[in-house]
Amino acid sequence: MFRTRVCDILDIEYPILQGAMAWIAGGKLAAAVSQAGGLGVIGTGNADAGWLKQEIDIARKITDRVFAVNLMLASPHVQEVAELIVQEKISVVTTGGGNPGIYMEKFKSENVKVVPVVASLALARRLARLGADAMIVEGMESGGHVGEMSTMCLVPMVADAIDIPVIAAGGIADGRGLMAALALGAEGVQVGTRFVCAEECGVHPAYQEKIIKARDRATVVCGISTGHPVRAIHNKFTRQYLLAEAQGLSQGDLEQLGRGKYPAAAVEGDVEFGSVLAGQISGLVGNIQKAEEIVMDIIQGAARIKEQWRGF
Amino acid sequence: MFRTRVCDILDIEYPILQGAMAWIAGGKLAAAVSQAGGLGVIGTGNADAGWLKQEIDIARKITDRVFAVNLMLASPHVQEVAELIVQEKISVVTTGGGNPGIYMEKFKSENVKVVPVVASLALARRLARLGADAMIVEGMESGGHVGEMSTMCLVPMVADAIDIPVIAAGGIADGRGLMAALALGAEGVQVGTRFVCAEECGVHPAYQEKIIKARDRATVVCGISTGHPVRAIHNKFTRQYLLAEAQGLSQGDLEQLGRGKYPAAAVEGDVEFGSVLAGQISGLVGNIQKAEEIVMDIIQGAARIKEQWRGF
Repeated sequence: MFRTRVCDILDIEYPILQGAMAWIAGGKLAAAVSQAGGLGVIGTGNADAGWLKQEIDIARKITDRVFAVNLMLASPHVQEVAELIVQEKISVVTTGGGNPGIYMEKFKSENVKVVPVVASLALARRLARLGADAMIVEGMESGGHVGEMSTMCLVPMVADAIDIPVIAAGGIADGRGLMAALALGAEGVQVGTRFVCAEECGVHPAYQEKIIKARDRATVVCGISTGHPVRAIHNKFTRQYLLAEAQGLSQGDLEQLGRGKYPAAAVEGDVEFGSVLAGQISGLVGNIQKAEEIVMDIIQGAARIKEQWRGF
Repeated sequence: MFRTRVCDILDIEYPILQGAMAWIAGGKLAAAVSQAGGLGVIGTGNADAGWLKQEIDIARKITDRVFAVNLMLASPHVQEVAELIVQEKISVVTTGGGNPGIYMEKFKSENVKVVPVVASLALARRLARLGADAMIVEGMESGGHVGEMSTMCLVPMVADAIDIPVIAAGGIADGRGLMAALALGAEGVQVGTRFVCAEECGVHPAYQEKIIKARDRATVVCGISTGHPVRAIHNKFTRQYLLAEAQGLSQGDLEQLGRGKYPAAAVEGDVEFGSVLAGQISGLVGNIQKAEEIVMDIIQGAARIKEQWRGF
């Protein structure tokens, strides 16, 4: 059911990828998602190879299924993390924060599938030409760093422009989102915010609680003036940051203001003065569940829609 | 095919509404869309009852099918336009620019169906309680005045919250968009930007050309600082306006800067120094077609997707 090229290329049962949330998507969450038939992803963020090795070991104790690692291209440890990925024979890498061009050849020669995250048509085209195996096309409704285009608009445009499979991200938390993504021409989805609320996610419980309580207009985008906009749940921190931006604070001062605020929320649980990165779809996430329940809910929800459409 | 409650309530064949673009969606376009099986809508904007009467007469010469009128609640002529709607026995009214509460009772007592446009869950809930017959839920990817939530996120949240049918708007230009909207829980779609490029649309050809040439990141949102954000194709005017906003120009000066800029583009064809309101989906609109061809392309595109999913 819902078997697409994404399943074949990544060697998974359901075309559902877990978003690679830095700090909190470790081996335990990745393994649980993969064990459930999706593709779990260890989010490295700025972590070093030592941390990644530990999380890979954790995941491998839980599952012998394929899981992926996200390589954050702006990380100071990107080089050693990329080497460890090859060394550990990780078979799928998703990439964020830039153009993975310089690693592409190395990964491909070692049979690592490369699945970049893009937020524009131009980058999608360029990375398809460089040999990406699939493409995560992320709309501006997603949490964390965002582009301008919505999922609804960008996915069909990219699907028209490239031959490799498209995986839609941004605004997807249930079977309706999966079916909508498939309708738009995607062959899979990446789900972030809902997996933050997985039992196995290594995030502070207060962070999950904040997402669960979120309503439709709970998130805001900060940092547009810096050229690096980020979506988070509106709280005391975002209020302070947006005010500073409106007052024309310098880039350096804004950077200083934002420093350490995401781990403050995600790890320490300071969800008022920390940065609670989350997507607009937070309003649809209502409880904490096992990763397996989330995967099955998405698949069963999509199957129900398909069934309803039989006589349509 | 694709018959939903929206078709039954509005008395149309296909669940496709034409967006009510002020100045340019007159009787000719509305009639062509209705004649093709969708719901054409005359967009009144700030026009008076005299103009509307003329457009209703034009439409009635072309079709005896149902068409709608959009009542712009912030218009100085809202009162006389509302009266003409009742007098002319228009059977469906869509409303924009506010809360149609005060007109609801009058319309309902005269058997006029009321279909408000909303961009948030709170307003959707309120208007459903007041007796709206269906609800157009518009994502921030749409052209013209926009909210914050994307179509992908807002549609399922509203569909969960209200019992009347939801019509998705924002980011929909083809059969993929229709199927995605249905998957998200909508029972119909409103299509704006693509109908601007209908042969029957009373817009300046240069405006259509601008949409047809648009790529994925062609639009920007102006006026966030005024509390009335508007999406338009990025050009010399939006560049100047965004700069003025960044420099902290007063609300009054910004209003002055924007005055008359939309008709300058839509009617006079000044697509560089005028405001070319259009949705993010512009990048998917590639040619000028008859309204009937647009309606049939959307329906046939959706039917192809449904067919492909049979064995899925």
